[in-house]
Amino acid sequence: MCQLLGMNCNVPTDIVFSFTGFATRGGRTDVHNDGWGIAFFEGAGVRHFVDHEAAMASPIADLIKRWPIKSKNVIAHIRKATQGRVALENCHPFVRELWGRYWVFAHNGDLKQYAPSLTGAFRPVGNTDSELAFCFLLQELRRRFGDSAPSLADLSAALRELVAEIAAHGPFNMMLSDGSALFAHCSTNLHYIVRQYPFTTAALSDEEMTVDFSEVTTPQDRVAIIVTAPLTNNEIWTQFASGEMKVFVDGAPTAL
Amino acid sequence: MCQLLGMNCNVPTDIVFSFTGFATRGGRTDVHNDGWGIAFFEGAGVRHFVDHEAAMASPIADLIKRWPIKSKNVIAHIRKATQGRVALENCHPFVRELWGRYWVFAHNGDLKQYAPSLTGAFRPVGNTDSELAFCFLLQELRRRFGDSAPSLADLSAALRELVAEIAAHGPFNMMLSDGSALFAHCSTNLHYIVRQYPFTTAALSDEEMTVDFSEVTTPQDRVAIIVTAPLTNNEIWTQFASGEMKVFVDGAPTAL
Repeated sequence: MCQLLGMNCNVPTDIVFSFTGFATRGGRTDVHNDGWGIAFFEGAGVRHFVDHEAAMASPIADLIKRWPIKSKNVIAHIRKATQGRVALENCHPFVRELWGRYWVFAHNGDLKQYAPSLTGAFRPVGNTDSELAFCFLLQELRRRFGDSAPSLADLSAALRELVAEIAAHGPFNMMLSDGSALFAHCSTNLHYIVRQYPFTTAALSDEEMTVDFSEVTTPQDRVAIIVTAPLTNNEIWTQFASGEMKVFVDGAPTAL
Repeated sequence: MCQLLGMNCNVPTDIVFSFTGFATRGGRTDVHNDGWGIAFFEGAGVRHFVDHEAAMASPIADLIKRWPIKSKNVIAHIRKATQGRVALENCHPFVRELWGRYWVFAHNGDLKQYAPSLTGAFRPVGNTDSELAFCFLLQELRRRFGDSAPSLADLSAALRELVAEIAAHGPFNMMLSDGSALFAHCSTNLHYIVRQYPFTTAALSDEEMTVDFSEVTTPQDRVAIIVTAPLTNNEIWTQFASGEMKVFVDGAPTAL
């Protein structure tokens, strides 16, 4: 199994604090050392970093811990290989284009007897169940909605159906973003927190590091962090129910 | 206009030497400071780095100059914006998937009255003529060959026709790779060199830097470097003819 980290905000925010704790699980405080990756939306563009080295040993992970890239939607992943060998093409997150937008996807879980019918419009490059599920999701979204992106409500409803279909094959904790919303589905383990005014100080569980968010934010800022296991030990995280999908927009879960 | 750099090799090779000279043109020895990018194939996977800062000021470019990523196919680009604002989604190279392979593309030139008919299978995210041409190329390859990749000979023949069609709209110096071959087309400016046994010492034109390739290679190694303007001042580079497309495999141009 792997671990997931996502961030959705109302203003571009850096993920240095959360990523620092998360990356420590990639080889030091936990066993997820079969590669890692992170993708940042920046406007319509995506900065995409993947590496088949452990996050703790990766020079790119080190750069990201020091360089505050600001983004409204981020998805990161540290990998403990279950299906697919340790190789760059099997590192999450995966990126594809649909409707003139990039889509970013990462998965933690293990799908069994999962062989969806692919038409060829989106085809996996590597050999993970995860990339297969991502290709299936995008194919089915395009099949349902044609050449134009639907409303967020219609998109969310379609994703709920598709995700449930995939999750019937095994654990499917996943995060998906098109740069405007972040969709997070829990099969087994997912938690989130919304940080907003009045901001407080947070302390990482995996590293000796604290941040007083009131010093680095404005009262209008709102940031949702979604992660496999809580990153801090002095804040209250909300656990997803099994089978629950939440849609985060502007730093908070929506009613969609 | 922009500048292009490509590398095609028979064994995974680092591009630190060539990229160091090339990146210097991104804001210091030349004016290409509206972003840059580089993509490295690693097996079937791709490491893709783009930045809208000048290459000379970019922390990622700095990392790439120090960290020898080994690859058999690399494409890099420094941008002087002609069409499309300075934004991450307009930075080359662009990456898309076709036939279960990643394709990497970069362009230098300026296409006029270029509005190809897109079916929606590949759609630009940004607003450059370059990404439009890339989407058109992949769409037409898929239309001609369906769901299966053709032979390299058939692929090369198809690309020659498509590239000529695009180049009728203006300068279309471009590089394209699927990780097995590197296709390079020249409208106005492109040069290449093949480095092979016996290797010699090369000296960059844009930086005080020399490398004795005989010390870092084996006699079997072969590396083709393709670039807008020659990177070294003590080697003989071959200029492409206008309208010429070359197909590089295993570090040398082929007869295809």
